[in-house]
Amino acid sequence: MPLLRFDVIEGRDEKSLQLLLDTAHKAMVEAFGVPERDRYQIVHQHPANELMIQDTGLGFQRTKDLVIISITSKTRTESQKEKLYALLAEKLEAECGISPEDLMVSITENGDADWSFGLGEAQFLNGKL
Amino acid sequence: MPLLRFDVIEGRDEKSLQLLLDTAHKAMVEAFGVPERDRYQIVHQHPANELMIQDTGLGFQRTKDLVIISITSKTRTESQKEKLYALLAEKLEAECGISPEDLMVSITENGDADWSFGLGEAQFLNGKL
Amino acid sequence: MPLLRFDVIEGRDEKSLQLLLDTAHKAMVEAFGVPERDRYQIVHQHPANELMIQDTGLGFQRTKDLVIISITSKTRTESQKEKLYALLAEKLEAECGISPEDLMVSITENGDADWSFGLGEAQFLNGKL
Repeated sequence: MPLLRFDVIEGRDEKSLQLLLDTAHKAMVEAFGVPERDRYQIVHQHPANELMIQDTGLGFQRTKDLVIISITSKTRTESQKEKLYALLAEKLEAECGISPEDLMVSITENGDADWSFGLGEAQFLNGKL
Repeated sequence: MPLLRFDVIEGRDEKSLQLLLDTAHKAMVEAFGVPERDRYQIVHQHPANELMIQDTGLGFQRTKDLVIISITSKTRTESQKEKLYALLAEKLEAECGISPEDLMVSITENGDADWSFGLGEAQFLNGKL
Repeated sequence: MPLLRFDVIEGRDEKSLQLLLDTAHKAMVEAFGVPERDRYQIVHQHPANELMIQDTGLGFQRTKDLVIISITSKTRTESQKEKLYALLAEKLEAECGISPEDLMVSITENGDADWSFGLGEAQFLNGKL
C-alpha cells in the first residue's frame, strides 16, 4: 500500500532506473513488512533546474544522482520509519552507487479508508486486505 | 477543494484525456458533494517504465490504461470515500472504457487552514468558503 | 523541511523559473521561520491541458502563469499558514508579475519521524535538527 513518488534528475538509462526502483522496493518490504506485490511506485524525471534541494545546514553534497522519495502510507511506527530510511540509504548505495547524501525521504500518513487498489473498492475496509 | 493528481501512461490523445478528467470530476461532485467549479486536477503523463503499479496479491491485471489518482482533501467520511471509489470505477469504465482493474486511488486529508485558492487568502478561514 | 511541489504551465524560461523558486522560498523563510538552506523545491512543468484548475465559484481568472504549490510540512499554526499565503501572493506578484489570482496553495502536515534529509537518518529524531 505505500505509494512512493520518486523525483530524480533525468539521465539514468532504463536499466538503472529499474534497479533503483527494485532496490527501493526491497528496502520497503524489509522495513515495513509489506507483501512483495504491495508495490506502488511512480517516477518523475526532471531537468536539474527543476529540483532545488538543499540541506538545512546539515552539510550534504547533492549531486545529479539525487533521489527524493515522497511516501504516502498508513500509520507506521518511528522504528519502522527509521529502519526504512537506513535500509534505503544502505541498499541504494550498495546496489546503485547512490551516495546516502543524495537521498531524501518524506512520509505522509493516511488511514484504512483512504485506499482503493482497484475495482472501485476500499480493500482495507471490505476485508480483502 | 480536493486537489487530484492523475498519473497515467502517455499515449492518450487530448480528447481522451479531457474526457477522463471530466468523468472523474463528475464522480467527485456526486460522491463528495462539492460545487461544480470546485475542480482542481493535475495530470502527469509517464512512459510506462515510470509506473510500477502492482496489486498486493489482489489479482488485478494492470494495462496501459492505468490511472492512479492521488487526492488531497479536507476530511470526508468513510462512506463518501467508498462512494467516490465506486463512482470513479463505474464512470471511468462506462465513459472512457477504463477497466476498474486499472484504477487506483489514494487520499490524504488536511484541514481548513491548509487551502488558499487565490489572492493569498485562506478561504476556509476567512468565510469566503 | 517543508517540501514544495510546484505545478506550472510550461513556457517560462530558466531565469523566470529560478526567480519564481527564489521568491517562493523567501516567503517560506519569512512565514515559517525556517533556515535559509531549509529549501526543498520540486517543479513539474505541464502542457496547459494537464492542469484543470477552477475556482470554487470565487471568480478568479486563471492564466498561463498559474502556479499551484503543494506543500508537505510539519505542523504549523493557522497564522503561519495565513502569513505564507499572503507573502507568496505579495512577493510573486511584486517579483515575478504573477497575479494573486494565479496562485493556489495546499498544505499537508506530517511529523518528526517523517523526514530523512540524507544519510538514511531521521534528523528530527536523532537530534541533528
